Amino acid sequence: MSNDLHAIRDAVRVFVDERDWDQFHTPKNLACAMSVEAAELLEHFQWLQDGQRDELGEAKVEQVRHEMADVLVYLVRMADKLDIDLGAAVVEKMALNRAKYPAELVRGDARKYHEYKDK
Amino acid sequence: MSNDLHAIRDAVRVFVDERDWDQFHTPKNLACAMSVEAAELLEHFQWLQDGQRDELGEAKVEQVRHEMADVLVYLVRMADKLDIDLGAAVVEKMALNRAKYPAELVRGDARKYHEYKDK
Amino acid sequence: MSNDLHAIRDAVRVFVDERDWDQFHTPKNLACAMSVEAAELLEHFQWLQDGQRDELGEAKVEQVRHEMADVLVYLVRMADKLDIDLGAAVVEKMALNRAKYPAELVRGDARKYHEYKDK
Amino acid sequence: MSNDLHAIRDAVRVFVDERDWDQFHTPKNLACAMSVEAAELLEHFQWLQDGQRDELGEAKVEQVRHEMADVLVYLVRMADKLDIDLGAAVVEKMALNRAKYPAELVRGDARKYHEYKDK
Repeated sequence: MSNDLHAIRDAVRVFVDERDWDQFHTPKNLACAMSVEAAELLEHFQWLQDGQRDELGEAKVEQVRHEMADVLVYLVRMADKLDIDLGAAVVEKMALNRAKYPAELVRGDARKYHEYKDK
Repeated sequence: MSNDLHAIRDAVRVFVDERDWDQFHTPKNLACAMSVEAAELLEHFQWLQDGQRDELGEAKVEQVRHEMADVLVYLVRMADKLDIDLGAAVVEKMALNRAKYPAELVRGDARKYHEYKDK
Repeated sequence: MSNDLHAIRDAVRVFVDERDWDQFHTPKNLACAMSVEAAELLEHFQWLQDGQRDELGEAKVEQVRHEMADVLVYLVRMADKLDIDLGAAVVEKMALNRAKYPAELVRGDARKYHEYKDK
Repeated sequence: MSNDLHAIRDAVRVFVDERDWDQFHTPKNLACAMSVEAAELLEHFQWLQDGQRDELGEAKVEQVRHEMADVLVYLVRMADKLDIDLGAAVVEKMALNRAKYPAELVRGDARKYHEYKDK
């Protein structure tokens, strides 16, 4: 499977069904779980300068990899339960972002970047 | 591209480079941004019962789709900056989870599920 | 001290100074840390129905109490570093909320509540 | 009221009762809402260096004040619904932290700080 979102979705379905955990997987509960995993990921960076690989160290990179996998699994599962195609959503959202942040207007300008992103 | 994580990574690279935004994309900043997007997603569910499609309504489903795309884009970008292969990380993490939560031990048991998941 | 926010702020100052941890306490880092603690709190509720005391159980209530204390400590510390008076901020925000959500307009109406709160 | 947590709790009770919103305030929903507010606070800092007052600017400081008030209001409300005394919880948690992070062991040492805090 590896890099295909539909293949990941299918693998997660099997994992959940084997454990009869679908009953806990309401979209709301999955949104909570994903937020929790995103924060566990953030925890590794909270007291660091910028969190580059060198600053993290290899042991932490391993933990970060696993937290990132957890976020992706819950995201894919939530998309599955809401019948949302994640890949199509990204294509659509990036088109919206291209219109919202025209390259020639926002290029390399931190101030403009902040103003735009904070809207 | 659609469902291939490497293709999404490449599209995000182009988008970021066109805007010269790579300078803002430290792993720490991306971890913050992803946590923020995950919470914006959660916001749609916070006062709902379980957040199924019917309870959300179609207008909200659209917003939820876009927030989910934002989470995925930041996740893919963070993986890129840390040189992490997300698909391989999921395969690895799911193998660990299979060992940690053996199906025959945790099947359909909310209590056991909680105990396990809270560890 | 107990219930006075200024007294809590003073106690946190002493704790931090004894450990020479002020150097890590930038507003950004504290915002990260508070978000992480809020998510650790949420983790206890993610698979529960509504998280009332009975559903949590006494052992969990103890952990929840401690996570809530962590959130408050980081919040108070952040206010201290930004020279913000938390008590005055609450008075001000509640006045704004009273104007934004007039009781006669939003009373007991989940639909209106959602619409308002999602704005 | 201002700086007394019990007075804030009482003011929030009045606000909620006037709107008949108690029905939405399960501990789980309040934990979601608080996590969302904490992330909205973090959003103001996500692309900044360290988020000191000068870097934020006065307009942002106002918004940050209000987000901090939101976090405190939900925290106080959650404590109320779970019958938890926040001030007492802080006293108790700080005593535990003093035992866990002895000043002479962790003083000013980022490495030790990280190791301790990441446990």
